[in-house]
Amino acid sequence: MSFSPRHPRFLSLKTRDDLVRAVATGLVVPQGLIAQGRGEAFDYLLGERTIPAASTATLAAAAHLLRAESPVISVNGNTAALAGKEIVVLASTISASIEVNLFHRTLEREKMIARHLKRFGAREILGVGSAASRTIGGISSPRAKVDPDGIGKADVVLISLEDGDRAQALEDAGKNIISIDLNPLSRTSQVASVSIVDNVVRAIPALNKASRKMKKLNRSQLERHTLNFNNEANLSNAIKQIVEYLQGWIKN
Amino acid sequence: MSFSPRHPRFLSLKTRDDLVRAVATGLVVPQGLIAQGRGEAFDYLLGERTIPAASTATLAAAAHLLRAESPVISVNGNTAALAGKEIVVLASTISASIEVNLFHRTLEREKMIARHLKRFGAREILGVGSAASRTIGGISSPRAKVDPDGIGKADVVLISLEDGDRAQALEDAGKNIISIDLNPLSRTSQVASVSIVDNVVRAIPALNKASRKMKKLNRSQLERHTLNFNNEANLSNAIKQIVEYLQGWIKN
Repeated sequence: MSFSPRHPRFLSLKTRDDLVRAVATGLVVPQGLIAQGRGEAFDYLLGERTIPAASTATLAAAAHLLRAESPVISVNGNTAALAGKEIVVLASTISASIEVNLFHRTLEREKMIARHLKRFGAREILGVGSAASRTIGGISSPRAKVDPDGIGKADVVLISLEDGDRAQALEDAGKNIISIDLNPLSRTSQVASVSIVDNVVRAIPALNKASRKMKKLNRSQLERHTLNFNNEANLSNAIKQIVEYLQGWIKN
Repeated sequence: MSFSPRHPRFLSLKTRDDLVRAVATGLVVPQGLIAQGRGEAFDYLLGERTIPAASTATLAAAAHLLRAESPVISVNGNTAALAGKEIVVLASTISASIEVNLFHRTLEREKMIARHLKRFGAREILGVGSAASRTIGGISSPRAKVDPDGIGKADVVLISLEDGDRAQALEDAGKNIISIDLNPLSRTSQVASVSIVDNVVRAIPALNKASRKMKKLNRSQLERHTLNFNNEANLSNAIKQIVEYLQGWIKN
């Protein structure tokens, strides 16, 4: 499909097109397109923009990531296809590891995602094949597999477009979870410590920008950012924004 | 993927699985999975059930279809894959023609959908290949193509999971449009005369049931059903149901 960059929904159409092509190469599984559609619907209800609640969560997320001992960015097919380049930049800014974690896990696809990210300058991708030798509790293998050098020892994990069971298991394992998910009601958004309700296409660049700025802050300034943030209240604000949008459509 | 029929989200998971398989056979295009995902998100916000506003619209829709001179059921890949059998039953109950109308039109896929529906007992499928020899105004070919014996001369057209441009063009061409779409804000829902905000998997069987019952009514009773229905107010009711659901998640 081809369309003009001046089309009002260009970014949305381009994203869709990128993912359909990523299915053709095998980077993304067909189920990833269904997940993309679910995201599109919620993005539509947010007005396809970064809402204030997402910006607030992004500042708290950057503070958590910069304070972390061993931060890890967990990457799946959709995230790699949509925000691969920006993820590599983020990993460098916050000195984080990148780990592949797939819902539909195959060695071939893990390697493909690792190659895709290395093309953007990533040095090492954790979690590929036998490197994911540890398991976390609460979910069934192979989704439970993690890399002992990555998520296995991480204190803060950034997950995006992640399955709710897995988000819950990571939180239960004592990790501090930062999620990027367009659905504020999803289990992932509900269990995370910091839930960014935004499209990864906008959220990762925003997280990059915030992290670069906040790198100059000292540890107590960063800590204040995390303590002042209330995820439950912030998620409620995100839902309120959707409600306001919908109420504008009611005619009686 | 395999899962138990006792799983709380069995129907949703089964539907997803059916569509992924339909992509493998070519019945559904990859973009159809994105559309499915968008629908899933809205269905989730409706509580994955037929809301009262949808039942009200279904009665009006059945009355319109039973009163029509030349009713046509427009079918695309997703609709055929998800509700093919029930569509063939509906066509027989209301004496309607079935016409294939694809957003991503290829002769091969048109034929495949026709074969799929004939397997469920459909005698004739309109709109395949050169049979779609007429065009309707307002949209670009090949999406504008219709069968002169079907949608070309139809007074009432049932569309489901339809593109907004096409819904608008059909309405502009003077057709009475009944839509099935989970998004009450979509252009399709907004331009239709009767908008059923429901999942096709539930909506077509419900329409079958309503049509069988209402077949016994006389013409003036059917007319009363159509006159008593206010689509704008009913769509607003559907949106209110989503708002109420979301408000239940707000914690401050």
